[in-house]
Amino acid sequence: MNAPISHARLLPHVDQQEIPPALLQALQARFGQRLSTAMAVREQHGRDESPFAVPPPGAVLFAESTADVSDAVALCSQYRTPVIPYGAGSSIEGHLLAVRGGLSIDVNRMNRVLAVDADDLTVTVQPGVTRKQLNEAIRDTGLFFPIDPGADASLGGMSATRASGTNAVRYGTMRENVLALQVVTASGEVIRTGTRAKKSSAGYDLTRLFVGSEGTLGLITEVTLRVYPLPEAISAAVCSFPTIADAVQATIETIQLGVPIARVELIDANSVRMVNAHSKLALREEPMLLMEFHGSPAGVQEQAGTVQEIAAGHGGKAFEWATTPEERTRLWTARHNAYFAAVQSRPGCRSITTDTCVPISRLADCLLESVAEADASGIPYFLVGHVGDGNFHFGYLVDPANERECDRAEALNERLIARALAMEGTCTGEHGIGLHKMQFLEEEAGPGAVDMMRTIKRALDPHNILNPGKIFAD
Amino acid sequence: MNAPISHARLLPHVDQQEIPPALLQALQARFGQRLSTAMAVREQHGRDESPFAVPPPGAVLFAESTADVSDAVALCSQYRTPVIPYGAGSSIEGHLLAVRGGLSIDVNRMNRVLAVDADDLTVTVQPGVTRKQLNEAIRDTGLFFPIDPGADASLGGMSATRASGTNAVRYGTMRENVLALQVVTASGEVIRTGTRAKKSSAGYDLTRLFVGSEGTLGLITEVTLRVYPLPEAISAAVCSFPTIADAVQATIETIQLGVPIARVELIDANSVRMVNAHSKLALREEPMLLMEFHGSPAGVQEQAGTVQEIAAGHGGKAFEWATTPEERTRLWTARHNAYFAAVQSRPGCRSITTDTCVPISRLADCLLESVAEADASGIPYFLVGHVGDGNFHFGYLVDPANERECDRAEALNERLIARALAMEGTCTGEHGIGLHKMQFLEEEAGPGAVDMMRTIKRALDPHNILNPGKIFAD
Repeated sequence: MNAPISHARLLPHVDQQEIPPALLQALQARFGQRLSTAMAVREQHGRDESPFAVPPPGAVLFAESTADVSDAVALCSQYRTPVIPYGAGSSIEGHLLAVRGGLSIDVNRMNRVLAVDADDLTVTVQPGVTRKQLNEAIRDTGLFFPIDPGADASLGGMSATRASGTNAVRYGTMRENVLALQVVTASGEVIRTGTRAKKSSAGYDLTRLFVGSEGTLGLITEVTLRVYPLPEAISAAVCSFPTIADAVQATIETIQLGVPIARVELIDANSVRMVNAHSKLALREEPMLLMEFHGSPAGVQEQAGTVQEIAAGHGGKAFEWATTPEERTRLWTARHNAYFAAVQSRPGCRSITTDTCVPISRLADCLLESVAEADASGIPYFLVGHVGDGNFHFGYLVDPANERECDRAEALNERLIARALAMEGTCTGEHGIGLHKMQFLEEEAGPGAVDMMRTIKRALDPHNILNPGKIFAD
Repeated sequence: MNAPISHARLLPHVDQQEIPPALLQALQARFGQRLSTAMAVREQHGRDESPFAVPPPGAVLFAESTADVSDAVALCSQYRTPVIPYGAGSSIEGHLLAVRGGLSIDVNRMNRVLAVDADDLTVTVQPGVTRKQLNEAIRDTGLFFPIDPGADASLGGMSATRASGTNAVRYGTMRENVLALQVVTASGEVIRTGTRAKKSSAGYDLTRLFVGSEGTLGLITEVTLRVYPLPEAISAAVCSFPTIADAVQATIETIQLGVPIARVELIDANSVRMVNAHSKLALREEPMLLMEFHGSPAGVQEQAGTVQEIAAGHGGKAFEWATTPEERTRLWTARHNAYFAAVQSRPGCRSITTDTCVPISRLADCLLESVAEADASGIPYFLVGHVGDGNFHFGYLVDPANERECDRAEALNERLIARALAMEGTCTGEHGIGLHKMQFLEEEAGPGAVDMMRTIKRALDPHNILNPGKIFAD
């Protein structure tokens, strides 16, 4: 959990509304013990991995069914009271914070895998199922769900933020892997947004409209997902490079050649140093790429051979292979621990995390200019990236009490985003807008497109009760 | 072109509004010769590949730029007059027909490839560029655009109907391959719906909202697309099977095993017979699969070996290979000629074409029950399918003057759709709703979801001028 920050540049517009006593009474009558107004419970639901400090929601409902969600929203709709869906609490842009007060609807008890249609390569889950839980549940079927944002996020939350992560370069993001949703609308009505058919041109793509809508258009109560046959062969490799530029160039060539690499992650020397200290490892403290190849045994070997050749052309060395699950886990430890190792490298610090994504040909320019700026700032940072997609994250490790430092870090983020937008990229590849990126969305999409989003929001949520105050100013 | 039909079951609700003289004058002042009210021109823009006979639009504008489209829509908006975008005219569900009258905006002169960003695997085109034109334009870059709906459709039209076709099993549909759009809204404003970043979680997914919106939410004036490196090796194969069931089972196993096959098309014995007669060929008049494999030479060989083994297990025989472009073209002739061969097999007939798509495990059941019904009906038909996606098309070849026959064919389509919906499939995999499938959309999506679509339509097009009367009743 990031330490909260009370930095002026980051303060969201908070205007909390109390839950009307009559609504509270009606909710209590309907839900009994499952409704909580205990401060500890509310506080737990009033923070996420973002740096914002906002007072908690007025109450928390532990929903157990679609009917629970539907009834709660219908009641809140009557009283024009905000509702905020809550999954794993791992979002990092302030999506969950009750800036207008209201009811937090916790869906963690809605954690059943409803259907595994192995023959169709689809599953249907309740929104509180996490990605790891899903993969446990389907392990015996020879299938897996590839989307891996790092955190063991809930699949409802991952849908709502259009999450992606390390496997997206091969398997796509939640955008490509959600087939259909069940959604509770602003009035409490329950709709389905699609079927289990792999493709369809039946009317507007409501599924994709809800994927990434951050709880502002409806509450997701079921998710139908694509899953994949476990590859016959998986092989992981780590390779060090003299410079970040070399690692990035090797990545760009790999993508441009069309190698179907499953993962290609950049870890900068800072991160390696932090991971070595944190996990008592002795990795070469140089920029490295972590890669994974999926396919037939021959196919994996062929892909890996091609990439090894490309890497060698850019000074890649210490190409280390891992084919057993244990060896792979060891290699991926560095990547998975990077965030925690970084935050622990500076006691009391918090990380201001960036999330730009640019067309692959601009990746080197965007990244290297930003590294130069970060180095010049003197602020400690780490850098990791899903570089095969052109997406990377700086974590600026700031002292939350040091306003000047926070200010400098935010200024770095702003310049990075301006740079990415000038290169036809996006301010957020996978974290979403939440509270933190509203201004950047306006710059990226333009006022016309944001107005269109707002028009859709108003049409589908006329009383502005669905996670209000997020994505754009209300 | 299908012969028109005046069959009661197919008659859309036509309520045409005249273009107000003052608007016509304003359009003429702005566009001069590019605005036409000549009956021949209007009639050409008043029909597509659908069976509906609707009087033509009141005028046709040959737009040459986004500014043209924007100005025309702004003028029509002032006068509450409908606008209908027109690309290649190859849609088959009545999308283009002027059921409420108005102005047809022909975008065929907007046919420039605006940017080829080969290093990023993206291109940006004007909406009148066709898929073949695009592939010609990028041939020297070593890239290709895979989406192939059969017709040489415009990329604006393919976006607007969420088209797909033979390569979708490997490369996805327009849903997965449109990165961003430039759109003229109902008021004539110009917006962009995304960037060239491969992924983004920046606000609502307006791109996917417009893909498949059939001109009812805005007019597409630019399309940014993903393109792919031409595979190092391509190999095509044709294989005959004793029964449709065998061919379908071989397909299902191929998909379930995760073989990254690029194309797998079913052609039934009727279609082969019609193609043989039409093109003087001597193909075995049995159900066949046409397949294509893309990858490295070794990868292609491996995939093909796996599929050949699967096919042999289902009585597959006469596995014939083609690796040169000429041989491949010869093999694909049967598939590409199927529609025309079929329509010519019964002089004066028209084809009522179905478009269901079901989860792959239900494909055999859905298909075989429908074949039995079609056989029992006595109506000549052909059957082709993008079976790797669970999507297939019957073409019922009816005499348009024979109302009973048309009725029986429509009844077959209705039962097929009911069957597909019961199997968690969709009434349209790739053709769209248009005029023909409104009732089925209601059955598939449910009134709540269709209401939501209507709410979005009303919010974004308050005067209902954008291709009104399509997708759902207005």
